[in-house]
Amino acid sequence: MTSFESLIRHFEKFPGIGARQARRFVFHLLTLPPDDLVAFSELIKNIHNEVTPCPSCFKFHTPTPYDKRCVICRSESRDQSKLTVVERDSDIDAIERGGVYDGLYFVLGGTVPLLGTQDTQRLRGGALKHLVATRAAEGLNEIILAFAINPDGENTGRYIEILLKDITEKYPIAIRHLGRGLSTGSELEYADPETIKNAFRNRS
Amino acid sequence: MTSFESLIRHFEKFPGIGARQARRFVFHLLTLPPDDLVAFSELIKNIHNEVTPCPSCFKFHTPTPYDKRCVICRSESRDQSKLTVVERDSDIDAIERGGVYDGLYFVLGGTVPLLGTQDTQRLRGGALKHLVATRAAEGLNEIILAFAINPDGENTGRYIEILLKDITEKYPIAIRHLGRGLSTGSELEYADPETIKNAFRNRS
Amino acid sequence: MTSFESLIRHFEKFPGIGARQARRFVFHLLTLPPDDLVAFSELIKNIHNEVTPCPSCFKFHTPTPYDKRCVICRSESRDQSKLTVVERDSDIDAIERGGVYDGLYFVLGGTVPLLGTQDTQRLRGGALKHLVATRAAEGLNEIILAFAINPDGENTGRYIEILLKDITEKYPIAIRHLGRGLSTGSELEYADPETIKNAFRNRS
Amino acid sequence: MTSFESLIRHFEKFPGIGARQARRFVFHLLTLPPDDLVAFSELIKNIHNEVTPCPSCFKFHTPTPYDKRCVICRSESRDQSKLTVVERDSDIDAIERGGVYDGLYFVLGGTVPLLGTQDTQRLRGGALKHLVATRAAEGLNEIILAFAINPDGENTGRYIEILLKDITEKYPIAIRHLGRGLSTGSELEYADPETIKNAFRNRS
Repeated sequence: MTSFESLIRHFEKFPGIGARQARRFVFHLLTLPPDDLVAFSELIKNIHNEVTPCPSCFKFHTPTPYDKRCVICRSESRDQSKLTVVERDSDIDAIERGGVYDGLYFVLGGTVPLLGTQDTQRLRGGALKHLVATRAAEGLNEIILAFAINPDGENTGRYIEILLKDITEKYPIAIRHLGRGLSTGSELEYADPETIKNAFRNRS
Repeated sequence: MTSFESLIRHFEKFPGIGARQARRFVFHLLTLPPDDLVAFSELIKNIHNEVTPCPSCFKFHTPTPYDKRCVICRSESRDQSKLTVVERDSDIDAIERGGVYDGLYFVLGGTVPLLGTQDTQRLRGGALKHLVATRAAEGLNEIILAFAINPDGENTGRYIEILLKDITEKYPIAIRHLGRGLSTGSELEYADPETIKNAFRNRS
Repeated sequence: MTSFESLIRHFEKFPGIGARQARRFVFHLLTLPPDDLVAFSELIKNIHNEVTPCPSCFKFHTPTPYDKRCVICRSESRDQSKLTVVERDSDIDAIERGGVYDGLYFVLGGTVPLLGTQDTQRLRGGALKHLVATRAAEGLNEIILAFAINPDGENTGRYIEILLKDITEKYPIAIRHLGRGLSTGSELEYADPETIKNAFRNRS
Repeated sequence: MTSFESLIRHFEKFPGIGARQARRFVFHLLTLPPDDLVAFSELIKNIHNEVTPCPSCFKFHTPTPYDKRCVICRSESRDQSKLTVVERDSDIDAIERGGVYDGLYFVLGGTVPLLGTQDTQRLRGGALKHLVATRAAEGLNEIILAFAINPDGENTGRYIEILLKDITEKYPIAIRHLGRGLSTGSELEYADPETIKNAFRNRS
């Protein structure tokens, strides 16, 4: 396999990238000046040194020499009594854009699919349990499950509830789910029956 | 203009139909047997005799000789204490598919656009006010505004609140809005900030 | 079944129209003034009287009292030595928009699917054979098969060639197919191999 | 700017990649094992050493130590009397998939836009002229212009014709364009007038 083909193989593994676009990416690289290629190449090689998971919430970030925690986890203005569990890093960005949540986060690292092998090894269930156990004694009183509104997201919610049962039975910690209903731009005519049902139940 | 062209003109005024599809509709009619054409033609000519607005909620329906009201308005099992105001007939179908609402309806007949002339003449504001005034004395205690989650829908909600102010100040009638949050299938990453905000506020 | 539902059933049979849009069409009719409904209804009932197939090419048109043939078939400026066979009426409109063909047409009324029952009863094969036989003695020398570039279109071409074999062997009539290659807006990168092959073979 | 952000900036310059997908690409890299990152990084750094333009047709390829030309240019079975000029490398792949062309290629490196500054400096016009002049004495007799069927592609064709005028007037070299007409899957009803015109002109 030539270098050209090897590079295509690497790009084909990128999320959402097929053979044709992978090929175009290599042609793009060929148009770049050598300096850019060296800089880009160095960033890729060193990414694990510079970008590491926050030891508390597991979000990827660039740590400072003095504090390995991410900006949210080390902020004193965040409400330490709330913890939102999300599937992946980008969910945190989305929630922060909402501008209404001021608590802490935990990145589970995936979902527990409803169908298929219920493999939870690759998730950070153990770390979450440990974190909640520690925080429970320090005032944590609400865990918000912020997973996708689909069968896998709901199954992941049940997994977390069972995982944390020992702790939530012992301490006064509420487990909550995100509100459901009509989203921005929704028209009733095109809304599914489940969403309509939630919109009526959660009317206010 | 030939009959062929006249028919195209009629079909071009149908919602969502352009010149090309209008033409195809006429070719479709040409393939139909004469009996079908006569039956279809009669139904169109007589539609106003057979399909009329319910005198109570204004939904279009086929009245019985004994009761001009629609099946929902004349049902004794519907909860007479709740009234949901919608923009158009098809919204009622969507809400009924949700299967959770058991009250009455009112079809306003349109929205009050946020921008442009605030023409409310073509809406059934007067009839709504009259209906609410009558029902207020008979136990109506909740009005649900079920408009689209967009600027026009929100403006229409404000219009109704002002319209009914006299009555809602005098009687114990709550005006409620549909619950907002994540809809079925939503992923946080693609949700807009407003929806994320509502999802957090309405967590439960 | 109510009139409302009967009308929905009729509209659901229209090409490309599903249950939801059929319903919207009925709501559209309900907004029309009675005069419009009567006019529309009359046009539909009488369509077969006013719009009939041209006895020569079978295109639907509005005949004059003096000549039942369509404007193309009765035009003296069209080249009588050429006949283009198409699947349906709208193909003639498309070819006329091209502005380069000046011969006559014949509407076959459908295609012969490559798979499935080779039912050619509903096609106008007999009428085509009769027309070609008559014209052959009057100078017809080219038949152009203008079907879609797909398996059914190609199969229909073969059917016509076999159908007319007796005549084309006896008279000097060429059967031709439309040119294939790159269409307007085509980029090589996105063209399929078959089209690329034709584009190279037909280079000029 | 952190390493994370720098990497996003690099990916945002990739063709067709926006801010959100660039971000996802970085998260993808973070999931890769160190060995993969090193291998990927090295391929990028060395791409210019391993992948170079063929000195004859300018297609990017991985040269052998013994021959810097690409596999097509050094093949003895390709027809040396034909030269196809394309805009970019991927066009050659598309034409080879067609499987009907057996001549040589030349990658111009872009098009001459119909509007805007007619900047032809970044194109390889000079190299093309040189190649054609050399080959003209060695039996080259056909140049095929394989550009997109749009205004820029046609303008580029005119540019090449003028560029090579001296040579094509002196030597018996035909300049040809790709055949135009209906492409695979085309239906007449949806074809544009220009394509219909070509399909009739190029009937066979």
